Amino acid sequence: MSAVDPIGRLIALLSRLPGLGEKSAGRIVYFLLRGNPDYARELGRAMAEIHDQVQRCEQCHDLSLSNPCPICADPERDRSTVMVVEEPHDLRAMEKSKSYRGRYHVLHGTLSPLEGRGPEQLTVEALLSRAQAGELKEIILALNPHVEGEATTAFLAEQLRGLPVKVTRLARGIPVGGDLEYLDPQSLGQAVRGRRKLGEE
Amino acid sequence: MSAVDPIGRLIALLSRLPGLGEKSAGRIVYFLLRGNPDYARELGRAMAEIHDQVQRCEQCHDLSLSNPCPICADPERDRSTVMVVEEPHDLRAMEKSKSYRGRYHVLHGTLSPLEGRGPEQLTVEALLSRAQAGELKEIILALNPHVEGEATTAFLAEQLRGLPVKVTRLARGIPVGGDLEYLDPQSLGQAVRGRRKLGEE
Repeated sequence: MSAVDPIGRLIALLSRLPGLGEKSAGRIVYFLLRGNPDYARELGRAMAEIHDQVQRCEQCHDLSLSNPCPICADPERDRSTVMVVEEPHDLRAMEKSKSYRGRYHVLHGTLSPLEGRGPEQLTVEALLSRAQAGELKEIILALNPHVEGEATTAFLAEQLRGLPVKVTRLARGIPVGGDLEYLDPQSLGQAVRGRRKLGEE
Repeated sequence: MSAVDPIGRLIALLSRLPGLGEKSAGRIVYFLLRGNPDYARELGRAMAEIHDQVQRCEQCHDLSLSNPCPICADPERDRSTVMVVEEPHDLRAMEKSKSYRGRYHVLHGTLSPLEGRGPEQLTVEALLSRAQAGELKEIILALNPHVEGEATTAFLAEQLRGLPVKVTRLARGIPVGGDLEYLDPQSLGQAVRGRRKLGEE
């Protein structure tokens, strides 16, 4: 395949996306070529323009159409509480649950020395500034419960120590619909240690 | 997410690609947004333009920059033999092996009554015309060895019966580097039934 071959070029470009290899990229290209040209054009244009249409909110660092984003600009949201999440899609998941009315802080990743991500690659500095400004009562660390998320939670807790703000984390336990038989031992252990008196919540 | 939300729209468009769901599409979008805008623009444009740059060869139905495609136009290729493959990427794999010097016929799929693909959705008609033209000595059916490929092979063999052309299929057996212990019983059976005398090939 020469450099001017548009199929080979598109496969090579697609292969750089997360979760796609050369074979799956090839499948996508031939799927596009078999399908309606309008779909390929619409998808391609949406992709080419995404950077120009989306901004980063300078308060919470979420990606949205406006800066500040609609959540940070909403006077109904509790301004004294900030929930720290890894990625914008974690924020969307939390919003869908309708169980949180404060604001957010998007880290854009976790610490990962192996992949070269230190605090400078994340929005840690901005989070500390928000905590130091003195307007926050509580910071909820809501990172994902995997190794890198745990390490990042520990790092942030250390950084926030001594500041005049309460630092909490999401409860651990049995997820709704979960089956004890298939739950991993660590989750079961956390559910037992964190048990509550019936009627309390 | 409203209809004018470009992130939600791009996720929805990407989710329609084969092998991607809403979550993997979301991962791709945030990967693009975190990365260099030039990459998203280059990928998007390559995708938007792919239909305009690629043509279908009217002889073999492969997708390429020219019509006829370079293989059909190559006077060095044996014009008396045609290999029938499912998809353009099967043709590329065969070309990489450098073990075939004839021409091709790309079906663009297999018969699949469940997914609504009959002979009209494939290039079966064109293949029969090529066989009837009387210039071919051999048609090699090189479909993939799964259920739909086998059914399509049987259908094509039936359609080609009585025409003045030899119809063959690829040899079945143990793949190079394969391990008897991990091969499925059907492949082992085909390898035993198709055994050759040492020195013959």
